[in-house]
Amino acid sequence: MLGLMQDHPLLISDLIEFAARHHAKQEIVSRRIEGDLHRYTYRDAAIRSRRLAHALDALGLAQSARVATLAWNGYRHFELYYGVSGSGRVVHTLNPRLPPDQLVWIVNDAEDEVFCFDLSFLPLVKAVAAKCPTVKHWVALCEADALPADTGIPGLVSYEAWIAPHSGEYAWPRLDERAAAALCYTSGTTGNPKGVLYSHRSTLLHAITASLPDGQALTSLGAVLPVVPMFHVNGWGLPYGAPLAGMKIVFPGPALDGKSVYELIEAEQVTMAAGVPTVWLALLNHVQGNGLRFSSLRRTMIGGSAVPPSMIRAFRAMGVDVLHGWGMTETSPLGTGSSFKSIHAGLDEEAKIAVLAKQGRAIFGVDMKVVDPEGRELPWDGRSAGDLLVRGPWVVSNYFRRAHETLLQDGWFPTGDVATIDEDGFMQITDRSKDVIKSGGEWISSIDIENIAMGHPAVAMAACIAVPHPKWDERPLLVVVPKPGTTPTAAELRAFYDGKVAKWQIPDDVVFVEAIPIGATGKMQKSILRERFRDHPLPT
Amino acid sequence: MLGLMQDHPLLISDLIEFAARHHAKQEIVSRRIEGDLHRYTYRDAAIRSRRLAHALDALGLAQSARVATLAWNGYRHFELYYGVSGSGRVVHTLNPRLPPDQLVWIVNDAEDEVFCFDLSFLPLVKAVAAKCPTVKHWVALCEADALPADTGIPGLVSYEAWIAPHSGEYAWPRLDERAAAALCYTSGTTGNPKGVLYSHRSTLLHAITASLPDGQALTSLGAVLPVVPMFHVNGWGLPYGAPLAGMKIVFPGPALDGKSVYELIEAEQVTMAAGVPTVWLALLNHVQGNGLRFSSLRRTMIGGSAVPPSMIRAFRAMGVDVLHGWGMTETSPLGTGSSFKSIHAGLDEEAKIAVLAKQGRAIFGVDMKVVDPEGRELPWDGRSAGDLLVRGPWVVSNYFRRAHETLLQDGWFPTGDVATIDEDGFMQITDRSKDVIKSGGEWISSIDIENIAMGHPAVAMAACIAVPHPKWDERPLLVVVPKPGTTPTAAELRAFYDGKVAKWQIPDDVVFVEAIPIGATGKMQKSILRERFRDHPLPT
Repeated sequence: MLGLMQDHPLLISDLIEFAARHHAKQEIVSRRIEGDLHRYTYRDAAIRSRRLAHALDALGLAQSARVATLAWNGYRHFELYYGVSGSGRVVHTLNPRLPPDQLVWIVNDAEDEVFCFDLSFLPLVKAVAAKCPTVKHWVALCEADALPADTGIPGLVSYEAWIAPHSGEYAWPRLDERAAAALCYTSGTTGNPKGVLYSHRSTLLHAITASLPDGQALTSLGAVLPVVPMFHVNGWGLPYGAPLAGMKIVFPGPALDGKSVYELIEAEQVTMAAGVPTVWLALLNHVQGNGLRFSSLRRTMIGGSAVPPSMIRAFRAMGVDVLHGWGMTETSPLGTGSSFKSIHAGLDEEAKIAVLAKQGRAIFGVDMKVVDPEGRELPWDGRSAGDLLVRGPWVVSNYFRRAHETLLQDGWFPTGDVATIDEDGFMQITDRSKDVIKSGGEWISSIDIENIAMGHPAVAMAACIAVPHPKWDERPLLVVVPKPGTTPTAAELRAFYDGKVAKWQIPDDVVFVEAIPIGATGKMQKSILRERFRDHPLPT
Repeated sequence: MLGLMQDHPLLISDLIEFAARHHAKQEIVSRRIEGDLHRYTYRDAAIRSRRLAHALDALGLAQSARVATLAWNGYRHFELYYGVSGSGRVVHTLNPRLPPDQLVWIVNDAEDEVFCFDLSFLPLVKAVAAKCPTVKHWVALCEADALPADTGIPGLVSYEAWIAPHSGEYAWPRLDERAAAALCYTSGTTGNPKGVLYSHRSTLLHAITASLPDGQALTSLGAVLPVVPMFHVNGWGLPYGAPLAGMKIVFPGPALDGKSVYELIEAEQVTMAAGVPTVWLALLNHVQGNGLRFSSLRRTMIGGSAVPPSMIRAFRAMGVDVLHGWGMTETSPLGTGSSFKSIHAGLDEEAKIAVLAKQGRAIFGVDMKVVDPEGRELPWDGRSAGDLLVRGPWVVSNYFRRAHETLLQDGWFPTGDVATIDEDGFMQITDRSKDVIKSGGEWISSIDIENIAMGHPAVAMAACIAVPHPKWDERPLLVVVPKPGTTPTAAELRAFYDGKVAKWQIPDDVVFVEAIPIGATGKMQKSILRERFRDHPLPT
């Protein structure tokens, strides 16, 4: 017997129509690539998303056709999220930080038919356009009069000229909620990139659940700043979550330096900001270096890589709560978040920071476990480290074009992370499985070693990597970027570990570098460091 | 093309399993009918819900079979929510405040096969049992040794003896998420009661969305007290929302007087409480009359009938936020909630109270409109009153056993309420359509007139009803229960309206009564008052 409730599919078009109707006057503010601020409302955004949907129809674009974007966070990119997915096509966000040949590979794998880009990426687009035969329509995200002549890109039109002729009214199709809506490629360090194909259902369930009070806590009373790019796993879902909360959005465009981000937060009275640790490091340096304070910011969501306790401490000291989140392209992305339970209410500040330094507890809808090499579940004791597996309605089942390959293990997605889970359900990543340091049959967590180093006053950035060792198989080497004006020594940094970890976990040596290579998604490229230092001499 | 995400149905069993695994040690505290407090954890609740599921299987109960409950808010009732729905049956909550003949009618309409009740309702059950031929199994929610002898109820067993033999492990069926999960009858003032049949999908979507920060704002950091009975539209979804947040639950049992509720809030450090205005009136009287304060309470959700501004003011003066909610049995129930938008941040306190006095804005998933008698949508101007229609994935499509009747109007559910919507999307109920006072072609909102009366220091309760009038068709009469120790006069109360409403809206007369009849769901029974005072002489 079925229930007798109304049958409404969960569709991405519902989000923008809800915001247009119930939060019509709420603002969306965007820093444009020209540097100025653009402001309009959810009602305006909906009207323009509908014009875009008509424009896609007018191209004769089939359902599920892929529309690529290469753009910063801004209002036109936001409209693409809704006009493309809402009309039944698939919005495919490209990461401009990828090498051109990888971009070409991805566009061809996705068979993108329309390609929309910010003019700042014109040189990159010129370099790849000829190698993207599936793309039939090129759109520059600008006014008609800003379109350069002689780009060499066939049929290039401006976004504004393209959508202008079309009606601001549109009947969004009532799609199957399991239809494909968005596509995002993982930038695997090995092998070709793999596409994750989100559905309307997975996107809405993720957006609603991620918005809960113990998650992103989105509210119409505040303003959210997605510093995380919209080409990183759909901006962590914020471009979907904000309209459903009726929350003001502030898009930073390409200006992600500490000063620009700080000034935007203050000018637009941002209450919640989300981004990766490297961006927050720049912001904190600017704020602390200039004796500034936050007048509106109440919450940051930090993810993409592990958050050092020193960063959590710095934000909290300025009255800003930290949600340390964990997720992947394959998990839409939010899987866990470190938010307190009532049992933590009585802890002192340092103990609270230790809780928040973990990747946190599963949000409702996600389940997780850690398993040993034979696939047996390990206890939730905060010590037993194993491969982390997750499942849920916004976790991948198969990669795009690889539906014939078996990805899941008994229904669980193997994340490639190594983690522990404690008795309160707080998960902590100890490593990527490929970054674990195996010394004398024991595992050393490179992340633990890095987090301690980040607490040293002379360390700006640190990576801990395995170096081959004749006796112990592997031993840890610490690679450090010193803070400007400091000259730490290896002996001093090694001594800093005394009493913080077991003696055998202390790095055998420390090397100092000017920079640590960062990949397209903001993560340290340890594989490059391992290659560079594989013959580094260690004491035997 | 479908997305490639994992396929998990949204099931009620997911909620309790999530809480058992990720919030295992979080507490559920219940005031029992014996008066003492019972405490256990989500892990315990899950184990006992699984035992119950086995016990239902052992009865040979078919999928979708109805299991009735007649019980206060407590841990066994909570287990019934999960064991019954989770195993594929339908939990049917009965309202013990209904007249016995209506209960009998409902049980027979629902064809309940199992009937579980608190021992305090034994006299009522004895009176109806023989008239409920579909019920094959009677269960008293008590220990085996508390079961009275010679009840006359055939085969009566105690809940504890019934579930004890069964395993605490259970493989919940992977049901169709649209399968029926719960049944609740509306107590219509005319005609027979009508059943609303919720699905797993509607229940989960409602629970997640209602829990958002601008809604019930449920969090694992707090403790929730559902004073609203679990037999009123599933306790407004809180028994589902709390496990998904990992939030401590405090169940008040039958002790709903001001002193008991206050002491429970303080003893268990409740942060969020939900109930109807009459309960809060008793609580506020106790707190104010004894010079007390709340040490933990931060938020109340008030619904079931319109909340007088004086109540909002009183709570806020004690540091307690008010969420004024609106909904119906047919809407699961949450449709709207009056929570602030960023545009309200600068308002002064009285202006804020005026915002909160409206029934509020739609939560995501719900859409609403007001229409004129011809069905044309009226403007959102805060003045144009019309019939309120709603739609969404947790709004009824048809009543139980009446799937052949057309209930919706072009896909919208007609609520029977008359309302306005303002330009910010805030809806305000001006009346039930049957309670509107039609005077000289104009409508007078009985709720407006009552709210003003409730602001008078000598008024404990007020109802405004239409009295037939030879010239104006109908005129308003105010029926008042004075506060103890006060003796207000009709002239004084009529004068109280000066400057607050138009002259022609002021009640023609005021009558004083000892009590206003309250129905089974806590609402004033104005139809009884209209009958009683239909010949009340008015000035012509």
